[in-house]
Parts: sequence; structure tokens; C-alpha cells
Amino acid sequence: MNLNLLHGVVGQSVPRVDAEAKVLGKGIFIADLFFPRMLYARVIRSSEPHAKITHIHLETARLVPGVPAILTAEDIPGRNEIHVVFNDQPFLAPGRVKYVGEPIAVLAAESPEIAEEAAEKITIEYEVLPPLLDPLEARWHPDIHLFGKDNIYRHLKVRKGNIEDGFARSDVTIENEYRTPCQEHAYLEPQGMVAVPRPNGLMDVYGSMQCPFYVQEGVATVLGLPLSRVRIIQTATGGAFGGKEDVPTLVGVQAAILAQKTGRPVKLIYSRDEDIISTSKRHPGIIRYKSGAKRDGTLQAIEVEYILDSGAYATLSPVVLWRGTVHAGGPYRIPHVKVDSYAVATHKVPAGAFRGFGSPQILFAAESQMDELARALGMDPCKIREKNLLRLNDETITGQKLTFSVGNLEAFQKTVETSGYLKKRNQKKETPGPIKKGFGLSSVYYGVGLGAGGIHLARAGAYVQILADASVQFAVGTTEMGQGMATVLTQIVADELGLPFDAVTILETDTSRVPDAGPTVASRATTMSGNALKDACGKLQESLFRAAGDLLQISKESIQIKEGWAVDSGKPGHRMTLKEVIAECFKRRENMAAAGFYRSPEVSWDDETGRGNAYITFAYATNAAEVEVDTETGVIRVLKITAAHDVGKAINPQLVTGQIEGGIVQGMGYTLTEEIVTKNGSVQNPNFSTYIIPTIKEAPEIDPLIVEAPFPNGPNGAKGFAEQPLMGIAPAIANAVYDAIGIRIKELPLTPERVWAALREKEGRDKRSSH
Amino acid sequence: MNLNLLHGVVGQSVPRVDAEAKVLGKGIFIADLFFPRMLYARVIRSSEPHAKITHIHLETARLVPGVPAILTAEDIPGRNEIHVVFNDQPFLAPGRVKYVGEPIAVLAAESPEIAEEAAEKITIEYEVLPPLLDPLEARWHPDIHLFGKDNIYRHLKVRKGNIEDGFARSDVTIENEYRTPCQEHAYLEPQGMVAVPRPNGLMDVYGSMQCPFYVQEGVATVLGLPLSRVRIIQTATGGAFGGKEDVPTLVGVQAAILAQKTGRPVKLIYSRDEDIISTSKRHPGIIRYKSGAKRDGTLQAIEVEYILDSGAYATLSPVVLWRGTVHAGGPYRIPHVKVDSYAVATHKVPAGAFRGFGSPQILFAAESQMDELARALGMDPCKIREKNLLRLNDETITGQKLTFSVGNLEAFQKTVETSGYLKKRNQKKETPGPIKKGFGLSSVYYGVGLGAGGIHLARAGAYVQILADASVQFAVGTTEMGQGMATVLTQIVADELGLPFDAVTILETDTSRVPDAGPTVASRATTMSGNALKDACGKLQESLFRAAGDLLQISKESIQIKEGWAVDSGKPGHRMTLKEVIAECFKRRENMAAAGFYRSPEVSWDDETGRGNAYITFAYATNAAEVEVDTETGVIRVLKITAAHDVGKAINPQLVTGQIEGGIVQGMGYTLTEEIVTKNGSVQNPNFSTYIIPTIKEAPEIDPLIVEAPFPNGPNGAKGFAEQPLMGIAPAIANAVYDAIGIRIKELPLTPERVWAALREKEGRDKRSSH
Repeated sequence: MNLNLLHGVVGQSVPRVDAEAKVLGKGIFIADLFFPRMLYARVIRSSEPHAKITHIHLETARLVPGVPAILTAEDIPGRNEIHVVFNDQPFLAPGRVKYVGEPIAVLAAESPEIAEEAAEKITIEYEVLPPLLDPLEARWHPDIHLFGKDNIYRHLKVRKGNIEDGFARSDVTIENEYRTPCQEHAYLEPQGMVAVPRPNGLMDVYGSMQCPFYVQEGVATVLGLPLSRVRIIQTATGGAFGGKEDVPTLVGVQAAILAQKTGRPVKLIYSRDEDIISTSKRHPGIIRYKSGAKRDGTLQAIEVEYILDSGAYATLSPVVLWRGTVHAGGPYRIPHVKVDSYAVATHKVPAGAFRGFGSPQILFAAESQMDELARALGMDPCKIREKNLLRLNDETITGQKLTFSVGNLEAFQKTVETSGYLKKRNQKKETPGPIKKGFGLSSVYYGVGLGAGGIHLARAGAYVQILADASVQFAVGTTEMGQGMATVLTQIVADELGLPFDAVTILETDTSRVPDAGPTVASRATTMSGNALKDACGKLQESLFRAAGDLLQISKESIQIKEGWAVDSGKPGHRMTLKEVIAECFKRRENMAAAGFYRSPEVSWDDETGRGNAYITFAYATNAAEVEVDTETGVIRVLKITAAHDVGKAINPQLVTGQIEGGIVQGMGYTLTEEIVTKNGSVQNPNFSTYIIPTIKEAPEIDPLIVEAPFPNGPNGAKGFAEQPLMGIAPAIANAVYDAIGIRIKELPLTPERVWAALREKEGRDKRSSH
Repeated sequence: MNLNLLHGVVGQSVPRVDAEAKVLGKGIFIADLFFPRMLYARVIRSSEPHAKITHIHLETARLVPGVPAILTAEDIPGRNEIHVVFNDQPFLAPGRVKYVGEPIAVLAAESPEIAEEAAEKITIEYEVLPPLLDPLEARWHPDIHLFGKDNIYRHLKVRKGNIEDGFARSDVTIENEYRTPCQEHAYLEPQGMVAVPRPNGLMDVYGSMQCPFYVQEGVATVLGLPLSRVRIIQTATGGAFGGKEDVPTLVGVQAAILAQKTGRPVKLIYSRDEDIISTSKRHPGIIRYKSGAKRDGTLQAIEVEYILDSGAYATLSPVVLWRGTVHAGGPYRIPHVKVDSYAVATHKVPAGAFRGFGSPQILFAAESQMDELARALGMDPCKIREKNLLRLNDETITGQKLTFSVGNLEAFQKTVETSGYLKKRNQKKETPGPIKKGFGLSSVYYGVGLGAGGIHLARAGAYVQILADASVQFAVGTTEMGQGMATVLTQIVADELGLPFDAVTILETDTSRVPDAGPTVASRATTMSGNALKDACGKLQESLFRAAGDLLQISKESIQIKEGWAVDSGKPGHRMTLKEVIAECFKRRENMAAAGFYRSPEVSWDDETGRGNAYITFAYATNAAEVEVDTETGVIRVLKITAAHDVGKAINPQLVTGQIEGGIVQGMGYTLTEEIVTKNGSVQNPNFSTYIIPTIKEAPEIDPLIVEAPFPNGPNGAKGFAEQPLMGIAPAIANAVYDAIGIRIKELPLTPERVWAALREKEGRDKRSSH
């Protein structure tokens, strides 16, 4: 397509603006950055999960030629503190280590090889202390205090209705414990930063990241600089998935403190194993879930205990827990609710943000429970869902009334119909061989944006300027990390200004271009930056309307801007090209730049009751999974996933379906194979030969479906949803596995070993009961 | 001083923000920039002043290994055109060359050495044509047409009163022809650029420059890109003086077209001789000046013909000529005026912008004439000036009524009094030896900003953001090139927001940060960007006032922001720190970024009559020079210059005096030694052993004096003035030389050879007349 002529692009699947760079290898990733006199950094890390550092031997390392700086906690000019939610995390361990991989020292050398040589010459003496490795043991531990008195970073509650009444009214009650694993983000590009000291005490930091404003705060804090002297520039980012939310702050400071000390640029790229052992993961979860329903399937009550194994520092755990807690009931009407959730400190690498952010764990439990309830009631899992799904004007478990944009039922129906779920399930025949087929559903919803858990960050800035040739540059503070934000925002700006897609260029994300836009997480980039851009474009439209009105000799209120033209809305033939109108604005010496801003609507949360309007809106989805289980080997093969998502408005349908496909495959990894295994707190599988992620060969057939229930506060009706595709995959597959082999496996991942063992156990049970 | 606590800095001589970088060698100049896979460019230039290119032999050069691109006019993807005022200049000569040094081809190679080797292997065949080298010959030349039919880029007129009446009423009339030389800017750092191709067809160009928006336009035009895909970033710039106004466009395009072709970064730095032969110069001038006055010294009339030798392309000549024409009368009341001025095309390197911009030439004539008139009238040069100086409500020669900020008389008096001019001159004794002492004056004025000659560019944008820790970042589109803009603007922003100097950081100038701010020329950066910053700060103040009003529980109109506090103006003890107020703004999720803009007041110009309000305001200055002339050798030694300048308001007095000192020494070079010599259009002295600039050893004692007649439209009352210190030095010295030896030398520079010859000629005349 000729992009130069392409107008009205919102809703069209225009190619990604970064497609050419990605395909031709032209993207500038952190590995591609080079500065004269650049040094290479290494981090020296703890080998113990819990110990006092009694001595750090740097003498031998200091003798290695070409190592201008080795720094420990003592050398920090500012505060030894990385702020995420709390300030409990030091930048370099000050005398005590709390997890294997915790940074103790950093060094910079003339080459990566010298850096490695010097790092190997540093020895650390420890006084080893007993670690807490199990969250159930750590919670309320009487003697070992890792955080506060109870080792609990946060305890959250939801209280709705009367839980005793709820179960009393239930005809059926089921209770189960579910467990979910520690998942690695497995982004293609590991963590990396280059810090470049600039004249006048300025520090520029380039890197792979989601949240440049977090890095800015961290660098300023640890280096003792004002924020205005620290500039963070995002480089092309090779995947993130939450793993580059808070961690890049640590990486950036590691590079920057060495750059400040040496006065030279410093590059730091983590090796894959270093990245896996030391950076955040998806929290392992333990979910005790009790559900009650009436005979007709009407949900009555849930009682949930949700425990997240959060590792040695709080990082994002309090807010991960919050999202999980709010999502505990799934997308259903439930009158009586009691949830207690806990983020628990253990001597392990801190868990943090990961696509879904505390909800995949609890939704695995919630949606497995729905099928178990259906079974107990003798209903089809389809029917019980349909009966209970949240509809317009219903209330969530936190008491939030859904007054708009509820595509829940529509997404459900679209998946069920398109997948042929009911027909296939009912026509399923018992096959003679070892391969058994099964069908499973899951319905989920996703609170868009930071919600009441992060309301102070729920704003974004944008900068837009129209140039004299009627082309446009814009900047935002959120980041492109593969999810397609740059393309979607370019589409929004192009349409807003009535200019062709190709006339609009997005600038790299750089903290000095826009005010703090908050993090690029929680599927918030499109709505937040999109609205901030609309605000900026609105200011520029004012100038365009005025000039066009004068040129066309009509009132500016009558002007419409559309597809390259300023049109008299009363008389469409009466018009003028936007190029002419923009030329007139320049002739008038108008300000053709604008700083836009968006503050998202108020939300609310009461910590005591867990009641409130938690999110500005929700996205909704239903997944249908079709699997085969080999009963001889325990191997599960996912044949097909059908997934309909209510996204409000698909600004770029191809990018929406791309997100659905990517989320499904990542969710399938979470379901079937992925698990970080630790031994005495130490990661045992820090590479992709032992930590198994799906490849293209395992990817199932995917049928991504779009539902559009417009969100009145979203740009063009859009709402964020990009985490949602992963969130319901595990229960959909687990429910399909149950359908295939009649076994409920309550612990992820569903490895062949685990399935095989369950099959053999069931065989044993079946045999015993047939005797 | 503790900058962190320093408030209320406007008017204080705070250290330059770039002082540390400059002193410690930390500034990043273009020579310091390096990018991976960077190539090195060379330009292949014409050896002929006028010729047809019959063949360009590239074959041998193409055989040199490591030369990925050699490009000629045929390879240009966009338009072969550099727009300055007209579009007459090609980027690469398309078949015909018009000056020695004109670019014909560009190449990029793996190293500077390979680039040079390949360049040497390129041979060009010419059909040589007769060149026009003398502007008097070129003007109206019947056969050789270099520009239009008459070889005149522009002819300007000023008509005021009735010139015949004016001379008829004059008791004394004198008429002289003056000539001024071609001056080289002699910036420390030669021209240089690095072009870096970026993904998605973007082109970033870094370089030493005054006018990034000019470079942006040039790169977009020649490369065939939309402006939004071209980003220009100024690097630390080692001097400019007008020489980096339009020329960097050419340099930037030379690098960028090779970068586009090869897909690799390309660095191009001119060698000193290449820079001198091929980049713009100060126009040589021929000024025929007739002046008439009454017996009492009252000026009656001037009739001026002003010819600028403009070289082979128009570049900035039309506007240089315009400024010179407007300044033709000097800072005096003159009722009858006739000025005709001509920018004439010749086959020489194009002359362009240079500190003073067409006025030093004509003011050398005008101020020499004032002394000649005084002599003819038997008056002291001091008296005739004082009598005629423009005062409040007087009119300039273009009919502009001066209704404010006229520090003309005050500057004059301050110089005369402080220098002890009258006393010294009257007490001067005839000394017996060969060394003769002399005293001379000059009064000048300077139209601030672009004036009516560039009204379409008379606007500027700015971007300011307050960060959460109460520090500030800001960006402007004008450039720091040593003149101190960065420091002065930082002072303005700090005071405007009531924050300490050290809390404020200026960002590098980058076309993508602000709208086109026009060029950094015409002493306009402080007023234009200063006012745009005030506009942005005003928007931010609104948020501060609102939050402070709420916190202090008073109306926002009662809030004053001052020295770190928000104060209840009715009750100064009732106050709150700005840190608290800013924290409150962030809590409220206010937009703490603003895009500011400034459009300078309307000015006017009528091309037929030369009447109009040419400038928004004027700066004024009087210089007093004290010299010694060695009558045996012709050597002039400048002992002292006293110079008072009306700058409206000295935002940073030390930077003002620094500008005065620098301008005086540069003006002294112009007066005494500097002259580019050409032979058949070819520069004969392209280095600093044959082109002689003053060193610290020749620098005279300087007494810089500040006068402040506040400019109501200037930021804090400031008006631009930085070109003015150079402008009156030549006539002050020439007048002092006349005072010393009784010889009026009407041609610059006053080299020992020229003075010696004049002395010998005078001796001959004196001898003859004594016979």
C-alpha cells in the first residue's frame, strides 16, 4: 500500500513502523551502541541465599591492568536504595545478602574479557545464615525476619456480602489448592544499558527497558544527581513482558555509577544465565480456592487464600498481589466473596512484573474451579460460564459497577460459536489408541491500566509538532517493546491531524522529551499516551481550524479535518488542502508544537474492605482450547486455541491478533513446560536448554477474534488488553486435559512427567476401584 | 559560590554552564563523535572560477578499495538545491562551476586516508569560461550573466526627505569612497558534521552549527525526505560568528547523502584550508559616501552607494545587504537620505553572514565620514556626534520612531567620560620620536533580531519541564556557540520559576525538541528564546500558583514565586517551599511540561522607499580607541578600547563584557590585518600563517561598560547586542590613526604596508606643498 496516500488509518492493519528495521536488522539495540573510550562492566553477585558478608577481597582484581573502577556499597555517592514500591532494596548489598545473584560489587574494564578476568579474581567471605525458601514457612516465621515482623510485604483483603451465608446458600461447594510455577520472561534480548557521562554533570543512560522514568529516578537517587541531570533514552527493546519494568533501573544504575566514577561511557549487558538467575520472574503462587454455587449453576460464594512467593525484596510484589486479588473471582457475578492474599518474602531472587501481573496464577485456580463446579453440578462448563458472566451494570467482586464497554458475553459467544466448542465436544468419540482429545474453555477479564493500585502514576504526557512540509513528529513517555505501541500511536496522530500515515514519525522515548508518563505496563500505553497525544493534537487543531476558517471564509467551528483536507462541514466541496492550511499557520508564525497531557479518571480502593472502583475499565476474553493427550507418555499437544478479546476498538487489527497469538504461545509455555527450578535458592536451569519455552513447532493453530465494545475514555474507543491473551491459557488447556483424560491437575506446568504420573495414579485408582 | 542555593540570578555573573566542560576538555565536539561502521567523507571541488564540466573521471577512484560511494549531481534523490534566501545554489555543481572550491562530487571511505587517496584520483575536465571577479565590472555586465540579467542579487533603496534639498541646505559636503576587505571567520573549530542513518528512513545529523532548522530543510530537500524524518542535533560548537549560519547546511547534506546511500554513519570535517577557500566570508564592500551638514554640525543629508561583492551564489547576500542598508546612516538623526545598495554576483566563493552582517562595512564609511565632517567643520568629532545622536522619539533613516530603550546618548557619554577621551586628546603633545599617539571615536547602533528582512522567521519555541524533585529541564531551538546563550537562558528560567540556578539544566539543541526557532543570528537568541521560555514558564506557574494557593488557603492571584518559596504577597511570612508546591502538583497529576512560543512584534519595510519600522528595537554603543602609529614602519598598536553598550539589561554582566572584549579583538583584526586575498578567484592565503588574526599579545587594554535602557519586549528588559562590539572598531581605530598621523585611510585593513605607503605619500605631498 502507498502509505504516503494512506488516510483514515485507525482500524486499518497498516504495517508496523518498525517492521523494516526489525526485518532488515537495522534496529539499534543496546548491543549495537558504541561510544569512544567505552568501558565494559560486570556485576559481582552473591553465591549465598542468606549470609553476612564478612570480607570482600578486591586486591587481586585491582592488580588486573585495565580495570579503572571496582565499586562496592561503600562507594555510593547518593542513597544505596532502589525505590520500586518500597525502599527496601539496596543497590549494592551493604554487608548482608538475601538471595543468590544479589549484586555486591560492580567493576568496569577496558574489555569484556578483562572485566570477566577481574570479576573472577574477586572473592567474598560470607557468614552463611539459614535461608527461608518456602513462602508457607516464611510467612509468620518466628525467628528469621526478612521483611517486617511477619515476612509479609503486603496482605490484601476483599470482603463482599457474607461469606458464611454465601456457602450456606450454595448447593455445591468445592475446595482445591492450586500451585503455579516461577516463570522466566525469556525475552530475546537480555538486560543491557550504556551510561554516558556528559559535560556539566549530566548522565545519559541508553538501554533496553519499559520504564525510563523509573531508571531516571534510580540513577538520580544512587548517583546523588538532580533528576534534571539524568536523561534516559530507550533503545530498541527486544522483548520485555514485565521483566524490563523495574529491573532495568538496577542495570542502569550499575552502568551509570561506573560511568560517573570513571568519567567514561560504560556498557553493561547481562549474559543469559546472569539474567535468568538475577532478574525478576513471575511469582510462584499457592491458591486455596473454595467455590459455592446453586444447583442451577448460579455462583454464590468464593473464599480464596492467595500466596505469592515474592523473593528477597518487595519490588513490585505489593501491586502484583493487588491486581491478582482484584481479579480473583474471574469475570463473573459473585455475591459473597472473601479473599486474603499475601506477598511473602523468601530468600530468593525477587519476583516481579510479568504479563498478567499476578492474575494468571489466580485465574488458573478460578477457571479450573469453574470446570470443577460444572462437573460437580453435572453442567457443561460452557453453560455455567454463560450463566454467571458479568454483563452491563453488573458488579465486580470489589463492588465496581460496569456501566460501559462490557464485551464479556460477546467475547464468550464469539469464541464458543467460532470454535464449534459445543458441537466438537458433544461429537467427541472415545478413540481406541493412547491419544485422547479434549476441549476446554476459560473466560477472563483484565483491569486496564494501573488502577487504584497505581493511581499516582495514572497520567501521561506527549509532544507533537507539525513541520512546515505538513509532516509530523511526536514523542511519548511510554515505550515500544515489540507490542506495537509506536504504530498504533502513529495511526492515532495521523487521523487526529487528518494527515497521511507516512507523514507522521514517532521519536525515540527519552525522559527529556515529555513529562513522566509512568511505566509502560498494565496494557496502558495505547490508552494513556493515545489520550495525551489527542490532547496535544487538539491544541494544534485549534490553529488549523483558525487558519482554515480564515482561508475558507467560514467560522472555525464549521471546519472538519479529514484525509488531507480542511473541509467546510456544511458544504463538503468547499475545502482546502491541509498542506495549504499548515503553510498559512507557518506564515502566521503560529506555535505548531504542543505538549499534551492525560490524567486517567479517578478510581478507588479501600484497603480494609477491598471495595472500590479498581480500574477505569476492563477487557474481556474467552479462550477455547483443543488438545490431545498421549496417555502413554503424558505429552500434551495443543491443537488449536480460539480466543475472542474485547479490546474496545482495534486501532490496528493485525497488531491485536499478533498480541493474541503471542500471548497464547507464551501462555502455553507457562502451562506445559516452563518452570524455574531452585535448589537452596539457587536457579538450577538458567538457560534455554534446561528451561524449555515453546518453539514455532509447538505453536498451535490459533484463531484470534476481535470484539469491540467501545471504551468511552479510550482513544477511538480502544482499551488496553495485551496481557490478557496469556492469562486464560493455562486453565483452558487444563480444562481440555481434564476433558481428555478425566484428570484435574492442579499444579503447573503440565509436564509429561506430571501428566504421566497422574495417569498412572488414576490407573491405579481405577484398578483399585474396579476390584 | 554555592550554585545550589543561588537564587535571583538574573543580573548576576554566574559562571557559564559550559565552563567546566570547556576548561576540562569534556565538551563533545564533532571530532569527538564516533559511531560504529562510520565512514569518512571528502568533497571534490572545482579548481576553476567559471567553467563547464566536460567530464568527471571517477573510474580510477572507484578502484580504490574501501570507497563505498562516490556521488555527483546525477545521484541526488531529491532536489539539487540549497535554499537560503533564493534557490539559486545547487548542492553539487550540475555541469557548470562558478567558483573555485565549489563542490562537484562527494565520496565516503573507510578511513580519512582512503578518502583522500580516492579524492586525489578523481580528475575533472573543464571548458574554462571567463570569470567576473570585480563587482564593479560584474554589475550590469552585458555578456556574462551569473545571476539574472544584471548580476545583481538585490538592489535596495532608502529614500527619506529630499536629497537635493538636503545637500542644498548643507554648509559643508564631503564625499569619499571606502573599501573593506573579505574577512574570514576564523572560528577555532572548522565545519564538521556526522550523519547517522536510522531505522524507518530517518536521518540524524550531528554537527557544529548555528541554525539546525536550516540544515534540516537542506537535508530533507536534497535527500527527498519529509522534514519529520530528519533530525538535527547541534554538538558543542567551537565558534561560528555567522560562518556557521548557512554553510553547515551544505556540509550536513554532504554527509547525509553519503549516509543515505551507504546506510552507514558518515563523518565529514573540513580541513582548515578547505574551510577557508570554500565557506562564506564577510563581503568585501565598496561604499561611496557623501555627507552634508550645517555649519553648527547638524547633519543634513547622506547619499550612499553601497556595493557588496557577493560571490557566485546569493546565499544570505540579500539580507546582509538589507541590514547594511538600514544601518547606513549610523545612530544619527538625518533628515535627507538616499541610499542605493547592491549585492553583486561574482565568480568567487559566496560571501555570507559575519558578525555585524553588512553593517561593519558601511559603518566604517559612515563613522569615518563623521570625523571627516568634523574636520571640515573644525569641530571635535565628539561634539558632532553628540549633537546628532538619535534620542528618544527621534526617527531613524528608515522613518522608524524610537519610542523606548534608546541608550544611545548614555552609551556615548559613558564612553567619552570613562575613557577620558576629551582630556586625553586635548592634552596630547606632539612627541618627537616616530611613534605618534591618536584618539578616535565611533558610535554605532544595531537593529536587534532579524527585523523586517526576516520577519517570517521571527518566532521561537521552547520546552520546559519541572521534574518531581523540583529540578528543571528546558530546550530551545537556538544554539550555544560560545556566546553564552545557554547560561543566560538558564538564568532566566531559574528566576522565572523561583528555583536555584543549579536546579535548571539546558538540553542540547535538537530540531525534534521544539518548533523551528529560526536561525541563531542577528543577536536574537536571548530575546527570542528568552521570551519563548517565559511563555512556557508562565504556563507552569499557573499550576504552581493553583497548588500553592490551595496549600496556603489563599487565592492563586496572591501567590508570588521567589527564591525557592511560594509566598503570600499580602503576608510574606505566610509561605511554603516550592519543593512542597511542586510535590503537590505531581500528586495532583498536573502537566508539569509546557511548550512555549514567542512571536516578535510586527515590523515593516517598503522595498520601493526603504521606509519602515525595520527592527523591534536597537542596541547602541560608542567606542573610544587609543592608538600608537609607528611612522617609520606603518605599524599600528591599539593601546586601549573603551566601549559602552546599551544592552537593555545585562542578564549576566560578565558574559556581556566577554562579548564586548571578543568583538573588539575580532574587530581589531578586521581593521588591521585580516584580508582574504584572491587571484583569479582562488584564495591565496588559506591558513593562519598567511591570513593573520590577532593573538592575545595584540589584544589592547579593554574597558567594557554596560548601559541598560530596558527593552519592554525583551526578557527582563534585555536586548540582543553581541554583534555590535565588532561593528564600530574599524572606524574608531581609523579615526584614531587620523588623529595620530593626519592621514585618512579609506581602505581596510590598515596594514603596515598600507599605512607606510600613505605616510610616504603624505611626506611627498607635504614636501611638495612646502616647496
